[in-house]
Amino acid sequence: MKNNKRHSKISASVRKEELLKALQEMGDSMYEKLDKGVFPEVVFPSRSVRNIVYDEKLLQYVLGDSRVKRSSQNIKHIRPFTQLVWLAFFANQLVRQGKTSTLRDVYYSAQAYNIDFKDQPESDDIITDLEATLCRAREDFSIYPEERSAIFGDLTIEYTVKGYEGRKLNLDSHPDGYLIGPSLSSAELVETSAEMVIAVEKGGLFSRFVEEKVHEKYKAIIIDTAGQPPRSTRYMLKRLNRELSLPVYILTDGDVYGEHIAMVIVSGSANAAHLRDLTVPTAKWIGVWGSDITKYKLPSDPMNEQAIKRIYELRKDPRYRKGIWQKELEVFLKLKRKSELEAFAKYGLTAIVDKYLPEKLEYAKSL
Amino acid sequence: MKNNKRHSKISASVRKEELLKALQEMGDSMYEKLDKGVFPEVVFPSRSVRNIVYDEKLLQYVLGDSRVKRSSQNIKHIRPFTQLVWLAFFANQLVRQGKTSTLRDVYYSAQAYNIDFKDQPESDDIITDLEATLCRAREDFSIYPEERSAIFGDLTIEYTVKGYEGRKLNLDSHPDGYLIGPSLSSAELVETSAEMVIAVEKGGLFSRFVEEKVHEKYKAIIIDTAGQPPRSTRYMLKRLNRELSLPVYILTDGDVYGEHIAMVIVSGSANAAHLRDLTVPTAKWIGVWGSDITKYKLPSDPMNEQAIKRIYELRKDPRYRKGIWQKELEVFLKLKRKSELEAFAKYGLTAIVDKYLPEKLEYAKSL
Repeated sequence: MKNNKRHSKISASVRKEELLKALQEMGDSMYEKLDKGVFPEVVFPSRSVRNIVYDEKLLQYVLGDSRVKRSSQNIKHIRPFTQLVWLAFFANQLVRQGKTSTLRDVYYSAQAYNIDFKDQPESDDIITDLEATLCRAREDFSIYPEERSAIFGDLTIEYTVKGYEGRKLNLDSHPDGYLIGPSLSSAELVETSAEMVIAVEKGGLFSRFVEEKVHEKYKAIIIDTAGQPPRSTRYMLKRLNRELSLPVYILTDGDVYGEHIAMVIVSGSANAAHLRDLTVPTAKWIGVWGSDITKYKLPSDPMNEQAIKRIYELRKDPRYRKGIWQKELEVFLKLKRKSELEAFAKYGLTAIVDKYLPEKLEYAKSL
Repeated sequence: MKNNKRHSKISASVRKEELLKALQEMGDSMYEKLDKGVFPEVVFPSRSVRNIVYDEKLLQYVLGDSRVKRSSQNIKHIRPFTQLVWLAFFANQLVRQGKTSTLRDVYYSAQAYNIDFKDQPESDDIITDLEATLCRAREDFSIYPEERSAIFGDLTIEYTVKGYEGRKLNLDSHPDGYLIGPSLSSAELVETSAEMVIAVEKGGLFSRFVEEKVHEKYKAIIIDTAGQPPRSTRYMLKRLNRELSLPVYILTDGDVYGEHIAMVIVSGSANAAHLRDLTVPTAKWIGVWGSDITKYKLPSDPMNEQAIKRIYELRKDPRYRKGIWQKELEVFLKLKRKSELEAFAKYGLTAIVDKYLPEKLEYAKSL
């Protein structure tokens, strides 16, 4: 690493080539079977609850060995089989033409081909089937959700989207932040002087961090997850961690929902058990912990019944069996109170940056 | 206008000076009264429902002549009077120090000064009182909401926020869009080659427009309002319209809620009746109209009871008494169906850009 700059080790264009190859192989297998006079079929891992298992080594939910077959020979399968094959065709078009689409767009686009989806949940479901078939997130085949979050910091990216190929941008010029959308998700991560990523749950705190120059003081790339982060944001966190070897620290509100936002970044969610590339197992949740509420004498509010019920649920979750996850869940349960990130404003608007963040980052190093 | 570029006629720094002067005057009047041995007071327009009237000329709700007095002489007034004066002090600090704050931050910050707000609604309410007192939106005194939307296009801005003063940026480099936050809201609008602003309700369509180069084909600045636009976005639309003389066109989903998103951009909302600078009376709602659902044979869904109830409510609203607003409300009521912007994907992903948008823009010119 020259000049203290980190450079990405993985190419976005290689990812695209691999995806197109996988789609090509899927299509080839159909034609081969047809040429042999055999009914074509698609086989992919089952996403049924019974096939979702927690992998202690990967620290995330994964799919077991159970497989689903969609065969064009089976009259009951013809509908989802056709939908899935059409979607593969559509995804192939999207990627080759350098276009993106939303989940909603897919639902309506199908009508142009007389492919019938009775509603969007049905088309969303087939999109997930294609993810499972290809072992890739839909973002890889250019299908994005609506919600997007933001990024700021010294990171030079190089776009790969049509019309912007080869153009570079440093993400430190616009202090309100850059949206993490299709262009950013598919860009090469060229170079950074940052030494860490700090993901925060809220836009207000994101602005505060930029305003107080957390990106300079701590050499950090700052990400606003905007609540539970959309998958494109989890994917970006993963890339920053893997490609640029940046550690990831997560700051959430001090309640059970905040803790779970951090957990999903670290370990993923059960309904993305068919995917990799969306988790950062080494990411650290540095607060706001239940114990911080007491330690920092934060203004707090009582948790409602629903939140308390949620704690009991998560206690049974294998991801929460150890360490800080388990410990803080118990603290929340005991306190039955929650504090927001903004609660530090009680000590002045910059207290969270001047006092809390450095203490927490120091502590995180010892974890 | 040289080189077909438009330049802003209003300076952000002048706005800031005016705001500080207004706060100074508010403080001066307190001290003057105290020096004279008189109880200080604050007087501002009443925001009670009876004092909200529709101004046919301004085409928006405004406050009538009824005034509210908060006097330190009145024991019942002492609490809100103190809160309001503290807030003016806090706002003055924010603006002078070049810091921003969220609504939530204000609530917690008060605790540092032993100012008691029983909950956030109470502090939000006092913030609105200060808006009414100063006749300025809270964004002018650096208090921003959480939600933010996005912008893209050939627009050169010059930051005025601390640490970025004088730095320029053109908003056409990052195709996923730039967040409209405190830095952008307070920036000078320096120069643009754009000839119009197109505001869309959804991030997916925003991405589609950038991808299909609507900004180049129509020389447009594209704004994603992310649903009902936050006030900072309405303020940005106003500035683009007033300072750069750009016409504003609005595209929403084809339902009563979409129509109302457009109306709020055009005419503001009743609960911002104490403010100007947030409406664009010349902005045009160009679709999706109820009549477009039939005309373009769009896939549609039945409206629910709540939406139909909303139509009956809006029919009584003075802003909906005329023109396209009234006409399309009647069409929705007759159809009892709604269509989303994405529904055009039935005709291919680019149909909305290739066919619908030009037809609608052409029509808008004749309005």
